[in-house]
Amino acid sequence: MKASRSYLDWAATAIPDEHPGDENKTAYGNPSSPHLEGRMAKEALENSRSICAGVLKVSQKELFFTSGGTESNALVLYSLLTRKGQGRLLYSGIEHPSVRENCLKLKKLGLLTGEIYVEKDGRVSEKSLSKALEKYTDTRFIAIMGVNNETGSLMDLKSLVSIARSHQAKTGIPIHIHSDLVQAAGKLHLDISKWDLDSASISSHKLGGPRGIGLLYLKKPLEVLYSGGEQEGRIRPGTENTPGAHSLAIVLARRANEETIDLEGEKARERFKYLIGRLKKMDRCSLIPEDREDDDPRFSPWILQARIRGLPGAVVVRALDDMGIAVSTGSACSSNSPERPVLEAMGLDNRARSEGIRISQGWSTDIRDLDALLEGIKKAASSL
Amino acid sequence: MKASRSYLDWAATAIPDEHPGDENKTAYGNPSSPHLEGRMAKEALENSRSICAGVLKVSQKELFFTSGGTESNALVLYSLLTRKGQGRLLYSGIEHPSVRENCLKLKKLGLLTGEIYVEKDGRVSEKSLSKALEKYTDTRFIAIMGVNNETGSLMDLKSLVSIARSHQAKTGIPIHIHSDLVQAAGKLHLDISKWDLDSASISSHKLGGPRGIGLLYLKKPLEVLYSGGEQEGRIRPGTENTPGAHSLAIVLARRANEETIDLEGEKARERFKYLIGRLKKMDRCSLIPEDREDDDPRFSPWILQARIRGLPGAVVVRALDDMGIAVSTGSACSSNSPERPVLEAMGLDNRARSEGIRISQGWSTDIRDLDALLEGIKKAASSL
Repeated sequence: MKASRSYLDWAATAIPDEHPGDENKTAYGNPSSPHLEGRMAKEALENSRSICAGVLKVSQKELFFTSGGTESNALVLYSLLTRKGQGRLLYSGIEHPSVRENCLKLKKLGLLTGEIYVEKDGRVSEKSLSKALEKYTDTRFIAIMGVNNETGSLMDLKSLVSIARSHQAKTGIPIHIHSDLVQAAGKLHLDISKWDLDSASISSHKLGGPRGIGLLYLKKPLEVLYSGGEQEGRIRPGTENTPGAHSLAIVLARRANEETIDLEGEKARERFKYLIGRLKKMDRCSLIPEDREDDDPRFSPWILQARIRGLPGAVVVRALDDMGIAVSTGSACSSNSPERPVLEAMGLDNRARSEGIRISQGWSTDIRDLDALLEGIKKAASSL
Repeated sequence: MKASRSYLDWAATAIPDEHPGDENKTAYGNPSSPHLEGRMAKEALENSRSICAGVLKVSQKELFFTSGGTESNALVLYSLLTRKGQGRLLYSGIEHPSVRENCLKLKKLGLLTGEIYVEKDGRVSEKSLSKALEKYTDTRFIAIMGVNNETGSLMDLKSLVSIARSHQAKTGIPIHIHSDLVQAAGKLHLDISKWDLDSASISSHKLGGPRGIGLLYLKKPLEVLYSGGEQEGRIRPGTENTPGAHSLAIVLARRANEETIDLEGEKARERFKYLIGRLKKMDRCSLIPEDREDDDPRFSPWILQARIRGLPGAVVVRALDDMGIAVSTGSACSSNSPERPVLEAMGLDNRARSEGIRISQGWSTDIRDLDALLEGIKKAASSL
């Protein structure tokens, strides 16, 4: 057993890097100011953008700094309010609250919406997207996340986008395809350009960088709702968070380069093989979905949903917390809600939903953390 | 003459404090997570909120952390889209782009809007507000900033709110009164509660704190547009910027306590008396508005608009920059636009508008900075 705490809630927030780049003290100016202080800040900001663009293999012109993943998602979704003409907004049943709740809000405001149903494994399959597009021929916007934040289910974005593009060619209605990549960035190989996405969201603090900064990838500029200054190509008003952008560039370069993704991904897979193999053998313990394998290509090796049958997830989270282990039920963003819309979308019944716990690892997770967790789950289950 | 640069663009952004509170390394958790790491982060966040509430003499429940002043303004304005019923949005002619541009956007989306005309000194007077309210009896929202960011014109918010409340009592239509206090916080005494405002915005980086964090004061909760997580009482979704909130609390406590405001305000007034007295005697130099006195209670002693007759402001800014002095024309948020809507609202002609430059000082400004500026302006004017 480990002496210190075992933090296994990396999907909520990563343990921050010790040195995500100190603020360049000379670049304190407002990047919009024309004087030297401003120009230096602007240069620092564009340098950060250029680093991010290099790592993500996109153009600098396609990247916009925002305050985080939630804002990046909202910004793209609410741009629909500024566009003339009708057309439907489709979103998958497993989206993060910052997508799902905003789609519901837009529906309330009169927009046409539709849900893309997911398979039992919590993935948007080619079939499920095709079905949705057949049903909603007026689709002009699709939101499908890259990696689900509660189960780790992986979407094959390349294939999904290609299906949407074929549909678009038939109907003649251009479709904007957005993907929340918050749980994918720094964990899996991204190829935003090749996947032919129109927009995507990335958050800094999930990568070990600071809070309050994120990225929005936008293939083409669009008119957004929130207006104000001319910063970030009028996509995101407000004085630019130059030091935040600098730190984000550093952690993105550190975590999202191809070699690190390969290396850390392999280690993560090995650790999860170890964990999943043991969880599967435990009394009363099952994975969500139940048929998740110990090295399953349908899932990210960084996030796992499991349950102890007979014990509410919230009880398990509390019991583990008392034993020094941090896990969660679902998304931290909806931790106060007993609803589990992602698990519901997967067809789980009320009881199974209430029992789900999320285990998510990071680059500094080690086997002792997993052993502590296994021990803790055993103890919790034995209390039944 | 000073050897180093003279930074006189504090209204764009302050020179950041050296130690605005280091992030509490143990509180890295997501404040929405129920485990120990999350609870510690939540405690740190609420502690920061409590410090801010104490300084601002408001209740903790009335303060919400946002990504900055621009977002605080947008958040309140766009909440109008979620409210049923008609009613007009009034905004003063001198609002910051993050208010003005959003009002124009809301108008484009179908909301009724109206402008409150300002006096020649760039202030919203009791008379100008009364006139607007007489004209627009359907008013349900008023946006009036506390201190204008280009001229330093000061609004008597207490009297203005009281006029609006009397109007409200007559019409029976509740009016939401919002004030952008970004240039007022840490510079002037605030009494948000007593002034009876419904909402107000504050930015951290204007106070010497970090970028990407700000405050929204809200007397009563309202339904906002952007949805997502349940953070900040559903007023501002997204993982909370705990370290940013911590630093904001520190700089707010440092700058916005009554004694510091008195002390630093007095010093700022003295410095501006020195500067204004000399500027007024200079050939071709005049203030905007021309009748601004050297210690004029209608203006903040931190911001000054002036002009060299015959020289475009952009040219002066560049010339001064080459001489090591940083000033600006108008708002950094609209530095790429030749438009000067604030000066236009004051009735200035095209030429005068194009000549305006903004001089804004901060707590570390000293007489040598002002001497360098005076010398620079003299040189620039003599080139004519």
